[in-house]
Amino acid sequence: MNYCSHCGKPVTHRIPTGDNRHRYVCDHCNRIHYENPRIVAGTIPVWGDRILLCRRAIEPRRGFWTLPAGFMENSETTLEAAVRETLEEAMADVTIDGLYTVLDVPHIDQVHMFFRATLTNGHYGAGEESLEAELFGLDEIPWEELAFPTIRETLEYFVRDKAENHFPVRLGDIRRKLGQ
Amino acid sequence: MNYCSHCGKPVTHRIPTGDNRHRYVCDHCNRIHYENPRIVAGTIPVWGDRILLCRRAIEPRRGFWTLPAGFMENSETTLEAAVRETLEEAMADVTIDGLYTVLDVPHIDQVHMFFRATLTNGHYGAGEESLEAELFGLDEIPWEELAFPTIRETLEYFVRDKAENHFPVRLGDIRRKLGQ
Repeated sequence: MNYCSHCGKPVTHRIPTGDNRHRYVCDHCNRIHYENPRIVAGTIPVWGDRILLCRRAIEPRRGFWTLPAGFMENSETTLEAAVRETLEEAMADVTIDGLYTVLDVPHIDQVHMFFRATLTNGHYGAGEESLEAELFGLDEIPWEELAFPTIRETLEYFVRDKAENHFPVRLGDIRRKLGQ
Repeated sequence: MNYCSHCGKPVTHRIPTGDNRHRYVCDHCNRIHYENPRIVAGTIPVWGDRILLCRRAIEPRRGFWTLPAGFMENSETTLEAAVRETLEEAMADVTIDGLYTVLDVPHIDQVHMFFRATLTNGHYGAGEESLEAELFGLDEIPWEELAFPTIRETLEYFVRDKAENHFPVRLGDIRRKLGQ
């Protein structure tokens, strides 16, 4: 951030009076430009005993497998964001069965939230940001080709909880780097 | 948003190529300025059979009672944000017992997340943004003087779940306006 988005004058990066963190501050119009973490919302789409994964068509991690997920937009709920991303990336209609994982990723200022979901009619396909979409049995998950740590974490929880068919909400944080 | 925070030139508000939503776009440096919901994180601090509420010293809803909560910052987890806000607003150290409510508030582009927590040593006080902090029995909650709908919703869930002493994570959305 170099300029004030309100008045267009240069900003400075300093601790404002009464605050204890560095912020981008405009000394012309006195606005403080706060920056906050973003939410990534997605689903674990289930059809029978299989789950739907997408192979990414875009960077980062092009060619790797992911659960359908993406940045939550203004004016929608986390659940609506997860359903929308599943439709966009996997061309699949889902009904939500419940919130499942809430995974903080503080080094990239994100919180990832995954919902358990069921495909409405078994239809799916590759959306614009996917190379392909495919159903995998829980013993067929391509663990070595997963796109992100939160995808692995969510799938690991899911496989374990599926054995008991009990899916409590899982809170965690990921401090590993991309691909590790 | 009037100006590009990167190059300082005026932005336009339009749907970028390949997108389906209005964004602030800089036609000079081609940056797209996405805006996303923010997370408010807080706690239900418990001490014995009572919970700690704060009376707000700042607008909006100055003078009304709230659970300690505030905007999550970059580089922290939701849990760390909730603990920090409890220390700042209620001057109370807490240990977190679990995630409890996740409440979407789409008309103001926020997601509120409350954690169940226990006061570490029973000490508390009024932080800078609070007029006072006070412990309330569950039959003493000032329902008519609560600051926000998500506070009411969280406390309503808590009182009901306390009867069974079972606190599953509660997902919901609030589309009511402030104070209703």
